[in-house]
Amino acid sequence: MVILDETNKEEFFRELVRFIELGQIELFRKDFFDLHVYEQTEFFQGLNEEDQNRLFQFLSPEEMADIFQHLPIKEQKIIFGRLEPTYASAMLAQMYVDDAADFLGELEVENQDQYLKLLNVEEAKEIKSLLNYPEDTAGGLMTTEYVAIPAFYTVQQVIMQLKKEAPDAETVYYLYVVDEEHRLVGVCSLRDLIIADSSALIKDIMSEHVVSVYAGLDQEKVADIVQKYDFLALPVIDEQERLVGIVTVDDVMDVMSEEATEDISKFSAINGHDLFDTNSFESAKRRLPWLIMLLFIGMGTATIIGHFQATLQQVTILAVFIPLIGGTGGNAGTQALAVVVRGLSIGEWEKKDLLHMLRRELGTGLITGTVAGLMITLITYFWQGNPMLGLVVGLSLFCTLVVSTLSGATIPILIQRLKIDPAVASGPFITTINDIVGMMIYFGIATLFMSFLL
Amino acid sequence: MVILDETNKEEFFRELVRFIELGQIELFRKDFFDLHVYEQTEFFQGLNEEDQNRLFQFLSPEEMADIFQHLPIKEQKIIFGRLEPTYASAMLAQMYVDDAADFLGELEVENQDQYLKLLNVEEAKEIKSLLNYPEDTAGGLMTTEYVAIPAFYTVQQVIMQLKKEAPDAETVYYLYVVDEEHRLVGVCSLRDLIIADSSALIKDIMSEHVVSVYAGLDQEKVADIVQKYDFLALPVIDEQERLVGIVTVDDVMDVMSEEATEDISKFSAINGHDLFDTNSFESAKRRLPWLIMLLFIGMGTATIIGHFQATLQQVTILAVFIPLIGGTGGNAGTQALAVVVRGLSIGEWEKKDLLHMLRRELGTGLITGTVAGLMITLITYFWQGNPMLGLVVGLSLFCTLVVSTLSGATIPILIQRLKIDPAVASGPFITTINDIVGMMIYFGIATLFMSFLL
Repeated sequence: MVILDETNKEEFFRELVRFIELGQIELFRKDFFDLHVYEQTEFFQGLNEEDQNRLFQFLSPEEMADIFQHLPIKEQKIIFGRLEPTYASAMLAQMYVDDAADFLGELEVENQDQYLKLLNVEEAKEIKSLLNYPEDTAGGLMTTEYVAIPAFYTVQQVIMQLKKEAPDAETVYYLYVVDEEHRLVGVCSLRDLIIADSSALIKDIMSEHVVSVYAGLDQEKVADIVQKYDFLALPVIDEQERLVGIVTVDDVMDVMSEEATEDISKFSAINGHDLFDTNSFESAKRRLPWLIMLLFIGMGTATIIGHFQATLQQVTILAVFIPLIGGTGGNAGTQALAVVVRGLSIGEWEKKDLLHMLRRELGTGLITGTVAGLMITLITYFWQGNPMLGLVVGLSLFCTLVVSTLSGATIPILIQRLKIDPAVASGPFITTINDIVGMMIYFGIATLFMSFLL
Repeated sequence: MVILDETNKEEFFRELVRFIELGQIELFRKDFFDLHVYEQTEFFQGLNEEDQNRLFQFLSPEEMADIFQHLPIKEQKIIFGRLEPTYASAMLAQMYVDDAADFLGELEVENQDQYLKLLNVEEAKEIKSLLNYPEDTAGGLMTTEYVAIPAFYTVQQVIMQLKKEAPDAETVYYLYVVDEEHRLVGVCSLRDLIIADSSALIKDIMSEHVVSVYAGLDQEKVADIVQKYDFLALPVIDEQERLVGIVTVDDVMDVMSEEATEDISKFSAINGHDLFDTNSFESAKRRLPWLIMLLFIGMGTATIIGHFQATLQQVTILAVFIPLIGGTGGNAGTQALAVVVRGLSIGEWEKKDLLHMLRRELGTGLITGTVAGLMITLITYFWQGNPMLGLVVGLSLFCTLVVSTLSGATIPILIQRLKIDPAVASGPFITTINDIVGMMIYFGIATLFMSFLL
């Protein structure tokens, strides 16, 4: 048993490299297969090109398939190009169908066809069928390697079938019961099977209450259902209600993790992928477009304040509260956005939900605006000894909070409706917009009350 | 088979309520047990108190346990108080041990003891052992209802054991092989068992490479391992390397979802729970403390600008760029924060990682600062026709970006090190701090170059 931690991993990996470079296949394979595939993959990724090429001699296409399907797509492409065609196609055939389709889906269409031709007809057909589904749907997530059984089988018959199919299926813990049209009629867990008498009929032990989803369903909703019902796998059906595949819980966890990263990017003016392992140039390249776009939108605030320069010249003290009003508006907008982002990820917005939410946010804005507005009025009055200035700042903060709360809640939904890239609905974007609105309100009100401020 | 969607659910639930109110147990039970437990729970939550009390007559403690463990803790407490003690303790005994411990863990210690006394000795002991682990560790997540087998058993013997234990175990898909000291020596999946000959010995088919975690490990790291290795369950061991429980994938998904909500709250000046289903007062109550705290910190900007009123009086145009400089600093800080939040959730920071990250963020700040600074210098020059003003604004933006990027990356880590509530390291907090720093830099530089600006 080998459990690697950071301290002994390095040494163990070095030993493996030595075996590769000395051509000691036996010794290498003995240690290498003591590792979990996750660590095998890590080891593979750490090798230089030469040693990787040697490794292909040490491993069968089937063994390599296991590692290959754990690599990121980018690396898969590089490695795949270096393999001999016969090795490559043998490896492709041994991969889980959904992983093979995910990989091929990233290639140009002509390259896809070229590799598909190397596979046998049955395999190529299965992969092709998966290539038709958009990546972020149940169809794009699913695998076709599930176990389907007829309702009239006995437990004994199913176990015989499993002994044959288990090594290739992605999960055997749920067995899906189908009729002669391949329509889903029930589900039976391996646990049910173990408990039952071997002569029992599947139709007597199966559960007819089987939750399934259509292939076109958004992946986020798929994840939601799997989590809600605590499933290990979820069957996917086509328009004719026929079983076409299953989504397994490991893919769902990957979706959840992806969506969590996406959610963060909604608040941080940064796109979510590979955030950590980059150098300064890479990360500046990723952040600059956002900073510059926001800088240009932010010029709006400069323009507005520019218009009110005459006001400012007369009452310079007004400048003191600029960041406070802009900032509080930004904070309120982000709070509202957080509610909507969490809400959106849980389900579609119904029209009545939307109205309910708008009413609620309006109410929230009015309450927070009143409290914060009164507070800042008093603080300003005691600080500057000027009651009118206090009123102007307080009233502005009140209006800004109401508008910011509403805009934080509505802009992302509007943008989703209009099918614009939702990244534009990010927190920093809303904050910048609210900055502009806040300045218009503040200087508008100040100019209106000008005669009292002097 | 009943698959409910929003349209037929309402009607189906109404029918069930009618059965309850007419006392038609048979009809009720027939339809009710056609539902998935998730929907049974939803139905239960929708009932008024009177109907809920009637329902307890319709369901055995065992049936009720299933629903009860799907309720949120808050509702569990209310319901539990309404149950007869014998019914309540029978129900408690039927719950999964980890769920029972989670529930009891939320009660006062004297109440815990009172309920534990109602259970039999064995059950009480198991629950008590779980109550000792902090909630957010492997021990807090795990259940003790796993299947442990000795290495010298045959497949046939294990299957016989499973037939007895399967109904009570939380998962039977991984069987953990232990020695006479109950130390974990291997793992065998139910899939392996099905494929193997019934006379094979467990020690010959088990995998010795079993990944396990200590009971004290943070739940986020547990989730990370389960996701990385695609496990359905992960064994938990104590200091003496003895198997004490397992964490199952459904609990891991709940952790992931919890952490995602927490991550969002790090960016949005709002604490993550029950964001959506509240009214205006509730949500204002949740948001106001943040807004007001940030308002007070934001008074720092007002104070700083107040100090520079003389500068402003002479060069009013400076006010125009206040939101731009503050806002861009805030955006850069949030970008850096996003990287750190993602990084932190993936693992602990090693000292060398920290240095590497700081160097990288410094580099990123220098690059983005240079580009954005030059850009704003030119824009300001062309807009206002004043090259010195352009230089002052550009230089300030450069310095602000460098400092903001670094503070966005370091403040959350410092705060974690100092064991202060990490909520204080939220995006809005950093944005507000960066606002203050930005204003100091901007007006500092402007005052320094005052003679050139007039």
